[in-house]
Amino acid sequence: MLDTPAYAARSADTPLVPFTIQRREPAAHEVLIDIRYCGVCHSDIHQARGEWGGGLFPMVPGHEIVGVVAQAGSAVTKFKVGDAVGVGCFVDSCRVCAQCTAGEEQHCNRGMVGTYNARDRAGAVTYGGYSTRITVDGNYVLRIPPALPLDRAAPLLCAGITTYSPLKRHGVTAGTRVAVVGLGGLGHMGVKLAHAMGAHVTVLSTSEAKRADALALGADAFAATAERATFKTLAGSFDFILDTVSAAHDYNAYLSLLAFEGTLCLVGMPDAPLPVSAGVLIMRRRTLTGSLIGGIRETQEMLDFCAQHDIASDIELIGVQQINEAYERMIRGDVRYRFVIDCASFG
Amino acid sequence: MLDTPAYAARSADTPLVPFTIQRREPAAHEVLIDIRYCGVCHSDIHQARGEWGGGLFPMVPGHEIVGVVAQAGSAVTKFKVGDAVGVGCFVDSCRVCAQCTAGEEQHCNRGMVGTYNARDRAGAVTYGGYSTRITVDGNYVLRIPPALPLDRAAPLLCAGITTYSPLKRHGVTAGTRVAVVGLGGLGHMGVKLAHAMGAHVTVLSTSEAKRADALALGADAFAATAERATFKTLAGSFDFILDTVSAAHDYNAYLSLLAFEGTLCLVGMPDAPLPVSAGVLIMRRRTLTGSLIGGIRETQEMLDFCAQHDIASDIELIGVQQINEAYERMIRGDVRYRFVIDCASFG
Repeated sequence: MLDTPAYAARSADTPLVPFTIQRREPAAHEVLIDIRYCGVCHSDIHQARGEWGGGLFPMVPGHEIVGVVAQAGSAVTKFKVGDAVGVGCFVDSCRVCAQCTAGEEQHCNRGMVGTYNARDRAGAVTYGGYSTRITVDGNYVLRIPPALPLDRAAPLLCAGITTYSPLKRHGVTAGTRVAVVGLGGLGHMGVKLAHAMGAHVTVLSTSEAKRADALALGADAFAATAERATFKTLAGSFDFILDTVSAAHDYNAYLSLLAFEGTLCLVGMPDAPLPVSAGVLIMRRRTLTGSLIGGIRETQEMLDFCAQHDIASDIELIGVQQINEAYERMIRGDVRYRFVIDCASFG
Repeated sequence: MLDTPAYAARSADTPLVPFTIQRREPAAHEVLIDIRYCGVCHSDIHQARGEWGGGLFPMVPGHEIVGVVAQAGSAVTKFKVGDAVGVGCFVDSCRVCAQCTAGEEQHCNRGMVGTYNARDRAGAVTYGGYSTRITVDGNYVLRIPPALPLDRAAPLLCAGITTYSPLKRHGVTAGTRVAVVGLGGLGHMGVKLAHAMGAHVTVLSTSEAKRADALALGADAFAATAERATFKTLAGSFDFILDTVSAAHDYNAYLSLLAFEGTLCLVGMPDAPLPVSAGVLIMRRRTLTGSLIGGIRETQEMLDFCAQHDIASDIELIGVQQINEAYERMIRGDVRYRFVIDCASFG
């Protein structure tokens, strides 16, 4: 086993602190990755603070991992030492169920093995990317195209695929009228990706504060949802709405912005169920659905798409020692648009 | 104009009483129909009692109309005197918007003209099928195939198309695992239609009371939703759920019965919005949607499908004089499964 520096939450109510974990030597089908960067996802906070229940402590968060192959097992053909690679939200799955064989491993019938805060098939607790290396089965590792800067690519592994997958699956293309609700880590990627797909993109955000950013990110229009007039003016005007908001909000108001047969897709997860009007769905045959990250094949497709369209995340690079402060700033919405840990800071 | 006997609600809080209306002589593109039967839909009660607001009184309800062509305008080529015909929930629409030209007139951008409790394009109030004749544009009239008994065909014009359209649109076919929630006027048609499409059909109804009926109607299975175990046993086991219930109920419980990428389609309209969990949608990529009757072309397709598969509504024939009593029985759920007015009872 390999002694590896990391940052961990020792319990749900204590800050993250330095912690040494063991990484295994790569087996024949595995690669050992030197982690260069790790994005900081809002779900890291939820899990590190036990807000989703069932946290396994000590917990090393991080599932937006980018690094370089340090060692490749004998059976690994896809990667060689020195390759730029990524790891996202999961590191294994059953591989035999209908979803796994369809390339939708995130919906594995037996449950995907999370990159952290999970137990792998041997029963060991998984540790995430707030560390300097990780050993992962080569089938669950992504190739980072050379055109992508490694630091700005890290958030693609979660925020990128979370927004790319629903846009793609729902057929967003040239001329599709897309709205993105919320301009945070997810929303800013949604805007860039929908724009690159050729959509007409409107950002719906609470106040005017993010108008300039929205337009700079590629949005064609912006509307403040605190303005009552917005919901009248834009009624029935979108084919697809990507809703990235995790705070409670009025689903019916956003559903009413959909045109005939439009779809509101949730990628944010509010704490409690929210009211939905049957009439708003029935009268214009609208659809409410959700989407969860993406499978390995689609994540690779997204990375290649980003490289081709010169898309990466807007980030603020931090040292791992700043992680607790970064969490506080994220809770206040004070980041444009993703913190990324520079793992050189482990020293 | 033609003096025509009818039954009307003179106000939202009085019972239906005899009332004489005027029907127009058919114009070139219209047909005059001698109404033989009219089904009694639960929405008749809502509207006659002003429960949806904005009722136009006196109101002659009825939008499940079957009769025989008595007179055809000179420009009508689809129908001739003596043809068995039907009229459903609407008698006109703008004919030029995207939905009208796509054969989805019920979703007309300018609003369909309801068969009753609406204003036609000339501004006149429309009167429905609780009467002995009606004049309708031939483009909004359906052909009743000879194989269908006229009385049992009447409910197909609303209950039939309301359930056929979503089953068809969502690709229900041989082997699809379908659940029908609620076994009333809509539900019993949903069971017959899904069964004829080759689906494996499960009826979900509050208590065991309707098990025998469900199986007799063509269901393969039945489960009582008052039993807590039902939601555990059947978790993740349906591809498509047709929800016909208008009373408040737990959408999340039914969503959890859907398999990966399954769809819960609402055709019942509860009075108030009901809570929906983002997690239940996201985790298995489920969909919540709704459906509203169907267009003229699809309604004709449904009637032809019913004739081909020997499907009609299970009805209880009444004289129009029994309509107020029928309403009370419907509110108690005491009808298997649709009241149909025999218009010969007008005498």
